[in-house]
Amino acid sequence: MSLTPIAALGEFGLIHHLTRNIQPSNPNLAFGIGDDAAVIRMNNGKLQLVSTDLLLEGVHFDLTYTPLKHLGYKAVAVNVSDICAMNGQAQYITLSMGLSSKFTVEAVEELFSGVLAACKYYGVELVGGDTSSSLQGLILNVAVWGEVEENRVCYRHTAKNHDLLCVSGDLGAAYLGLNLLEREKRIFKENPDFKPDFEGRDYLLQRQLKPDARMDVVALLAEAGVVPTAMIDVSDGLASECLHLATRSGLGVRLYEEKLPISEQAWKQAGEFKLEPAICALNGGEDYELLFTINQKDYEAIAQIAEISVIGHMTDASEGYRLMTKGEQLIDLEAQGWQAFKAQS
Amino acid sequence: MSLTPIAALGEFGLIHHLTRNIQPSNPNLAFGIGDDAAVIRMNNGKLQLVSTDLLLEGVHFDLTYTPLKHLGYKAVAVNVSDICAMNGQAQYITLSMGLSSKFTVEAVEELFSGVLAACKYYGVELVGGDTSSSLQGLILNVAVWGEVEENRVCYRHTAKNHDLLCVSGDLGAAYLGLNLLEREKRIFKENPDFKPDFEGRDYLLQRQLKPDARMDVVALLAEAGVVPTAMIDVSDGLASECLHLATRSGLGVRLYEEKLPISEQAWKQAGEFKLEPAICALNGGEDYELLFTINQKDYEAIAQIAEISVIGHMTDASEGYRLMTKGEQLIDLEAQGWQAFKAQS
Repeated sequence: MSLTPIAALGEFGLIHHLTRNIQPSNPNLAFGIGDDAAVIRMNNGKLQLVSTDLLLEGVHFDLTYTPLKHLGYKAVAVNVSDICAMNGQAQYITLSMGLSSKFTVEAVEELFSGVLAACKYYGVELVGGDTSSSLQGLILNVAVWGEVEENRVCYRHTAKNHDLLCVSGDLGAAYLGLNLLEREKRIFKENPDFKPDFEGRDYLLQRQLKPDARMDVVALLAEAGVVPTAMIDVSDGLASECLHLATRSGLGVRLYEEKLPISEQAWKQAGEFKLEPAICALNGGEDYELLFTINQKDYEAIAQIAEISVIGHMTDASEGYRLMTKGEQLIDLEAQGWQAFKAQS
Repeated sequence: MSLTPIAALGEFGLIHHLTRNIQPSNPNLAFGIGDDAAVIRMNNGKLQLVSTDLLLEGVHFDLTYTPLKHLGYKAVAVNVSDICAMNGQAQYITLSMGLSSKFTVEAVEELFSGVLAACKYYGVELVGGDTSSSLQGLILNVAVWGEVEENRVCYRHTAKNHDLLCVSGDLGAAYLGLNLLEREKRIFKENPDFKPDFEGRDYLLQRQLKPDARMDVVALLAEAGVVPTAMIDVSDGLASECLHLATRSGLGVRLYEEKLPISEQAWKQAGEFKLEPAICALNGGEDYELLFTINQKDYEAIAQIAEISVIGHMTDASEGYRLMTKGEQLIDLEAQGWQAFKAQS
């Protein structure tokens, strides 16, 4: 029997490999595996949305510099973001916690207060969960439920040729915040008297430690009378998500470097790290912004919304997945993304 | 600031402590934290049920003797069991997997084939999930949802005085199966040439390694026209679950040792281990049978069902939580149960 390391397939490859033969049998399942959330038909003309995310100490977060309250908040926010990416409203979550013996009741209270703060902020109800001891570190799993009207649901695979590609907020800051925290951690290890100075970089830290789901953008789109033709949230990085939208829709995509929304703090920090700001935006990930396509007729409605940038458009598949640089070079997009399994190999 | 070890509260104490001030605000939430599943009102007169379970290597399972396919099956079964315990029908699950680098694609396929086998057996659809690398061992989280008609839902807190206490199947075998596997593991460690002989103990192993949710019992109750007054599944042990039903319902409970259903293999194995079979049934856990109360008027209907034993009745709270032994002694029930956090202290 041949043995294949998981790293040979990667996360998306493994999921595809495992689920390739699954044939949904329940007629109410509108869409199963392969989008931000599963979609189930309800009897009231609405669709139920379901998603789940696992967060592991040492893989997804580092407690050296992640306050527990922020972590609890983030665990909820990243799940709510998956419901936003379907253009839906999150309603309920469950929380599973694996706790090693290093955690005190007070520490768990801190974590839990962040969970409840996020629930309150997003109008989501914590309805259940599971708690267990863990031999190694902290384990969190959140499952989230929400709903959306049938005529407003946004999948990944429904973009059309010539649609405009839009993104909310700005990109790359969460990645730069992570790099900043990792740098300060290294310095602190060498010199424990070192006091990190994060002045003027608060936005970068906030984007990494306390990301928010763009429920406000879902509401703004509804107010503007716009239903995106396809949508995904930016968790693995803009390039990776663009490739998802394009390949799933059987299209190509064209991005413009000069259109990428990047914050001032991200620009400065990228300079200090000698990184290209555009590369941080394309491959950084964890921005939890919404990336979506709209029909060109909706351009005027979208142009009114300050939170949204038009960064490109969908093309015929034959034109590939390309970024036009500021120097007017066309380069291929590659999904660096969140290569969770590469780190092990 | 005082620091309290989690073991001081235990799993149930910690959950109560964290959730004591949660005030549900969504009017559709019929029941939140504190039963086998959360209960949400749908617009079609049905109730939606939601539950989740975390399974951790080294805490909930030992891969030395747990075949991955069985583990995948069990991860689904224990979740479906929570929906059965609400008298409901499981419909959908999500699966989160944390995989350390020791796992090959082929190993994950084995695990996943067990998940799919259980989904098929229970008529449940896998609709989504999350996959990540893990630094230490295998992490599984399943979230499950299902539905039940409003007039058939069974909570824990609704038993009435004088109700009969019933349990499906038999008890203690899963615990004895675990002890058997642990013993053979110890012997194998000392003598790697040792070949364990499990002849005549297949039922014990099956109960531990491949437990089934009692969806059949939910159907039998419906056929018999019986709606239990309260119900819970036996995951932590009969004594612990009896205490849950009684205390939540503001009642006492009386069990009869001679009525406890115990299989022949469990009797034999308990003898070999010099354990009291009744203690294995009371405190063993992981039986995933259904423990429920019925109104006395339903006795005749229940008596027809071979799968169900009447093992006691509910009493006034003042009579306490008691077991009548075969020697006609009344002893207090104590929840040994699944003390996940005690193992660490």
